[in-house]
This record gives sequence, structure tokens and C-alpha cells, in this order.
Amino acid sequence: MTEPLRLGIAGLGTVGTGVVKIVRQKASLLAARAGRPVVITGVSARTRDKDRGVSLDAYAWEDDPVALARRDDVDVFVELMGGSDGPAKAATEAAIAAGKDVVTANKAMLALHGQALATAAESAGRVLRFEAAVAGGIPVVKALTEGLAGNDITRVMGVMNGTCNYILTRMQATGQGYNTLFEEADKLGYLEADPNLDVGGIDAGHKLALLSSIAFGTQVDFSAIELEGIERVTLADIRHADDMGYRIKLLGVAQMTGRGLEQRMSPCLVPADSPLGQLEGGTNMVVLEGDMVEQIVLRGPGAGEGPTASAVMSDVMDIARGCRIATFGQPASGLKPPKAARAATPAPYYLRILLEDKPGALAKVAAVLGEAGISINRMRQYRHDDTTAPVLIVTHKTTRSALDGALDAMSRLDVMVGEPVALRIETV
Amino acid sequence: MTEPLRLGIAGLGTVGTGVVKIVRQKASLLAARAGRPVVITGVSARTRDKDRGVSLDAYAWEDDPVALARRDDVDVFVELMGGSDGPAKAATEAAIAAGKDVVTANKAMLALHGQALATAAESAGRVLRFEAAVAGGIPVVKALTEGLAGNDITRVMGVMNGTCNYILTRMQATGQGYNTLFEEADKLGYLEADPNLDVGGIDAGHKLALLSSIAFGTQVDFSAIELEGIERVTLADIRHADDMGYRIKLLGVAQMTGRGLEQRMSPCLVPADSPLGQLEGGTNMVVLEGDMVEQIVLRGPGAGEGPTASAVMSDVMDIARGCRIATFGQPASGLKPPKAARAATPAPYYLRILLEDKPGALAKVAAVLGEAGISINRMRQYRHDDTTAPVLIVTHKTTRSALDGALDAMSRLDVMVGEPVALRIETV
Repeated sequence: MTEPLRLGIAGLGTVGTGVVKIVRQKASLLAARAGRPVVITGVSARTRDKDRGVSLDAYAWEDDPVALARRDDVDVFVELMGGSDGPAKAATEAAIAAGKDVVTANKAMLALHGQALATAAESAGRVLRFEAAVAGGIPVVKALTEGLAGNDITRVMGVMNGTCNYILTRMQATGQGYNTLFEEADKLGYLEADPNLDVGGIDAGHKLALLSSIAFGTQVDFSAIELEGIERVTLADIRHADDMGYRIKLLGVAQMTGRGLEQRMSPCLVPADSPLGQLEGGTNMVVLEGDMVEQIVLRGPGAGEGPTASAVMSDVMDIARGCRIATFGQPASGLKPPKAARAATPAPYYLRILLEDKPGALAKVAAVLGEAGISINRMRQYRHDDTTAPVLIVTHKTTRSALDGALDAMSRLDVMVGEPVALRIETV
Repeated sequence: MTEPLRLGIAGLGTVGTGVVKIVRQKASLLAARAGRPVVITGVSARTRDKDRGVSLDAYAWEDDPVALARRDDVDVFVELMGGSDGPAKAATEAAIAAGKDVVTANKAMLALHGQALATAAESAGRVLRFEAAVAGGIPVVKALTEGLAGNDITRVMGVMNGTCNYILTRMQATGQGYNTLFEEADKLGYLEADPNLDVGGIDAGHKLALLSSIAFGTQVDFSAIELEGIERVTLADIRHADDMGYRIKLLGVAQMTGRGLEQRMSPCLVPADSPLGQLEGGTNMVVLEGDMVEQIVLRGPGAGEGPTASAVMSDVMDIARGCRIATFGQPASGLKPPKAARAATPAPYYLRILLEDKPGALAKVAAVLGEAGISINRMRQYRHDDTTAPVLIVTHKTTRSALDGALDAMSRLDVMVGEPVALRIETV
């Protein structure tokens, strides 16, 4: 096939502009690699009159992305508007209905509607691809769907929100608190319009839900993810973790257990000298584990114009080359809803509690843990003021349900001050 | 397409046996992912009567891999025999001539004959794929060819020989010398039948030549690689490097410069706290840099039954799914021979020299460097015996040709004892 592949690009923010630049500036390279020209025929964005540093004169302009999605001269609809519903979803549905392939960077839309959209695309004989939706420039969707296609995937882990990792590693490096660094990240433009998408773990949770579906052949189920943000991580936690050779990361973990599919996105302790522990700043890292390949670690920029546009182009080039992979690696119509298992896998936990400084206080806590069948690996009591004593406990492996029982019992003790903090320690 | 994809597997060593196991044990998973069954119809190996831990009764047996390659009931010839010429090449050529697709793990064959084989395959409308030939289980060929297809690749780097990395990291960790650890690696079965393929950098050089071709759109040119093995790396070098915050790795680097394509496989110093510096044991790591994606780092097992079989299956599944990518990412007929540039990029260098312990010796060395326009960043003189003094120098950035001139001039100084050691310090 030597006919040009014609793109309609909806959304001309950072990523959309990056894609336009690549298609314009690398025309001959892309044609050599794809065996056919890749061209843009139409574009759509909210604002037409805006200097984007690149000329759009050669392209048809559509105010309405749905109209762009339906154009006869568009083969691939490239959705870079964002938002789980609204225009992005309407235009994606219109594109599929009009017989177009779709490439999107929209993790929220796919985490919530991926099953329906993929089924619609596949019924229509079209593909819906989303490399740019997960971990920016890292070709992780491709690595998992294609590179590890001969594996039963056993676990997927990742640090997939650069803003959270930036805040956490800056807390570690500068000794500044969460609130200060949240404000710094905001000033640097690192936060989403709704910051809770970042610091609440939602954005990273969307990404994990997509990888889970590919890994385990199940329908995307964002609602089943155990979600916990980084807002409650304190400088004290980061320092205590460091003392014991750990780093705190907003870590996503998906694994199939005997009791069902476990999906978690939460602050975890990981060994400071592991690849995940060493990951600094806004960089992303995904760890893929399969029964044949053992463990693959992928690291790269999780956001930004160039990296995200690079990922969009990976999907575009696949389509140009005639590679048409199902959205989640196998037909969406055959994917089953996962049976969700909440934190079924035992793990050691880090506990930080504040006790009233009275005789016997620590014994009461230790007794509660003992009654719950949780044994203590390490315990440290820190210097305290006149009335309270901070205590740090690292448990041996236990289940989340046993731990929750113990935390509940602790909260009824008369020596507890405030809520205990419990963070999972993930083996990597 | 729902017809089974039929494999003929030639070579039933570790990797071939691993592929047989995957196809047998994961039949339904592979069929779900590929949209069609993947089956084995025939096999070939040197020895038929050998317990491989898996039954071959259901498959046709061919003593001659060429006969297997020509069978009517084979769609994909899977070449896992190894060896750059001989039966592997003959059978690969026969498969292409008979209209079969080929999947191979044979880096030596492709590094030496890849251009001719890829041209033949593409003329016949067939594909020749080699994910398993580079960095074992890491899907690096896919990441580079497809994942980064929208990038001008600027540099490819990698630690791609696990045996060398094992020896070097064990030297660091145990304080044992090269010869002792070479013997240890031999006993553990880590060395090729011809160990020079490993420790001489040839095996890793083959892999680098293949990645270079994809990255820069040039014909594979193994002969243009500047090749240096790890045999001359001493414990002293490892310790001195460590003192200054570096690790020594057998590092492959390919980059396009204004003067041509630079391809090097040699022991280099890399920062101890960089991902490459932290890489321990037999693990492989590849760093891919592109103008859009910035930097992607891939890490995983570089060898072994499971990981290598996983990589073979990646290619097989691509073919089963109808993804037919050109061997080097674009038509082989259009690839140009690269203009080779020998170490054109300036870099800092590590020099270790042994001087006679006489007044003015160091001044003579410093004068030689100064005359060559090479400035010194750091210099340390170590404790010495009665007659000689080991001196360590880290230069500022200089070209290899300036350095070679200086080394040549040094060798004529009357204060030098033995040959100086010069290792490049690679910025990562």
C-alpha cells in the first residue's frame, strides 16, 4: 500500500502540536519507515487563532471535532483533546461509526469507556490504539501487548505519575513538606487543572487499569482499583522510610491472585537501591513480569510534548504499516469482567503511630498486633515531646484485612493520638 | 484470518525447547491474542534422541534444517541453530526462497549477512525478524523499530553481554581478578564455546550493529565497529574508577555524527549512580535516545531459556497477527552503507599509566598531554613501590585522535613502564 495515510488531529495543545511538528518535519523519514506517506488533512481545536509555532494553513479546519472525525479525507482520527466524556468521547464514537481508526492519548476516556469503545471499533473492523495514554514516551503498551505476547503476565507495576514522583523525591531531597512542594509543582505547571487527578492517584490509576486489561485479558475496571493518593505522606514518613533503606513512591501494582485481580495505586515503600527506588523526579518507570521473560523494566519521560507525541506516532506508524492490534491485545468482545480481589497478596507494612507518653502504651499496641496474628519485624520509638511518642513499626508479611482489623482495634485504644499511617512495602 | 500459523523450528537447544514449551502450554492464550492458533508442524536438530523435557512426537522430524525450511506445512521458519554461516544461513536462505517468513535469534548471521538476507526476504514479500538476537527478553528491536518510529534516533547505548557484565560486577564486588572470574563464568556455563565472542566484545558488537542499522537507516556494518574486549580491564582500573564515582562496563554506543556513523563496543566508565552504572550481574540494559522521546531505558534478562523464547514468540505473534515490519524498519533495498567515523565524538578519558619513580616523570606526561591540547580534569598518584608510580588521569573532553597522538608520544618517553590504559568516560 503506497496511498498516504491521512490524519485528522483533534486537540492542538502541547501534544497535538508536537504531532503536527513530527508529521511536517519528518515526512521523508516517516514515509521510508511506513512505506507510504503520512499526512495531516484536517485539524480541530477550541481556539483557531493562537500561535502554536507551526503553520496549520495546509489543513482543513473544523470547529467541531465530530465533524473532523467524519471527514472523508481522514483515515485516522487522532484524539488529543482529553476528558473522559464530552467532545473527546463523542468524536471518538463518531470516528469509529464513520469507519476510521482512532489513536488517542486519553487515559481517562479509556479507563472509563475503553471496553465499549474497543468493542465498537473492533465490530467495525477498526483499531483504537492508546500508547500515549500510559507512561508518556515509554512504549509500554507495545512492550506488554506485543513484546511479551508469549507470556502469562504475573505482575505489572509502575510509577506512572511524574508529578507525584516529583513531589515525593523533592520532599526527600529538600526536606520540604508536602504542601510546599505541592505549591511548587503547581507553579511549575506540573499539576492537572484538577490536582486531585495527580495527587489523588486517579490519573495513574487510569493508566494502571489499562495495563491490567492487556496483562490479564480482562475488561478495564477502573472502579476496582484500590486508590490512595500521596496527600497524607509526611516528611516524617519519608525520613523514617529512608532510615530503613526505603523510598516512598506512588506505586501501581496489578497482579492476578488465586482470589482474583488485585489492582492498587497507593504510596508504597520500595527498596532504596531498587530501580523503582532510584527513580527521581518526573520520570516514569514500569515493571513488567511474565512467566517466561522474568522481569522487564522500562524507564522514560512520562509527559511532555516530544515524548507524548512520540508515543502517538508509534500508533500512527503501526497503522500506516498495516499493524492492526486489538486495543487490549485480544478481541474486546472476549474480555471478561475481572473478579476484583482487594489487597489479597500478603506484604510487610510500615506503620507510624503516635502514642500518649504513658507507661504500657507500647505494650497495648504490640498486644493488638499480636492478637491479629501480625508479627513485628522492626520497631523504633523516636524522640518525643512531653506528652506524645511517635512509634514506627515494620511488620512481617500480613494481609491487608488482618492489618485493617488491627488498625481498627488500635483506634479504640485510649493511648492512641490521631490516626495511624499504614503503607505497604512492595517487593520489587 | 483464522488459519493456524504453522512453525518449523530448527535448533532445539535451550531456546528452541523454550519456544516449543510456550507453543504447547499456552495454546489458548496465544490463539486469543493472535486471533488464530499458533502451532508447530516440524522440528529439526542435530540430535533426535535426547530428552528435552517436552514431547516432540506430534511434529514432523527433519534431520536437515534446509528440508524443514522447505516443507509445505511450514509458514514460519524459526531459526535457532546459531552460527553466522553453515546450516543456519543455508536454511534461512532456503526458507526465504520457499516463500516462508523467518524468525531468528542469530545475531552473528544477521550482523554479517543481514543486508543480503533482508533484501532477499523483502524481494520475496516475506519478513525476517530477530527480536531474540538482541538483549534477550528485552523487546528492544520492537521498541526501536516501532515504538520510536516517529523519532530521529540520536544515540543507542547498551550493556548487551551479560557474561561480561557478570565478570566486571563480580570483580567490583569480590575484589577478585579478571582471570579468576573468567574461570568462574566458564564453570557456570556463561561463556560461549569461543569465549572471545563474549569477552572480546564480538557478540555484543553483533547486537550493536543490528540496532545501529534500525536506528540510523543504514546497512548493517559490523566491520565498522570499534571493538575492544574486557580482557585488559584490571582490578586496579575498577577500583580507581570506583574511587572517582564510576563503574566500568562493556558499553556499546552508536551515534550519527557530522562525520559519519560512530559505532563502538568497548569498556567505558559510566557514572556509578546512573542506570547503566547500577546494572549488576547478567542483566542487560539498552538506552535509546531520540529527538522527540528524549531517553528511554530498557532493562531485563539478556539470555536464558524463558527470556529468549519470549522474544522469539514476540516475532511469531507479530506475524500471526499480520504485523509485517521490514527487518531493519524500512526496506533493506533502500538502506545505504554507512560512512564510518571512528570515535569522532569528543569525550573525557580515564588514563592509567605506570611511571618510573624519578623526579620530573609526571611533568613529562603532563607536558605531552598539554602539547596534544588535552587538559587534565583530575589526577591522582597512588602509593607506589620502590621503582614505579601508578598515576591516574581523568582528562577533560578530547577526541580519540588527539588522545592517540598523546599516547603515542607518551610511549616514547623514557619514564613510562608498560602500556598506558585509556578508557572512554561515557556521558549517560
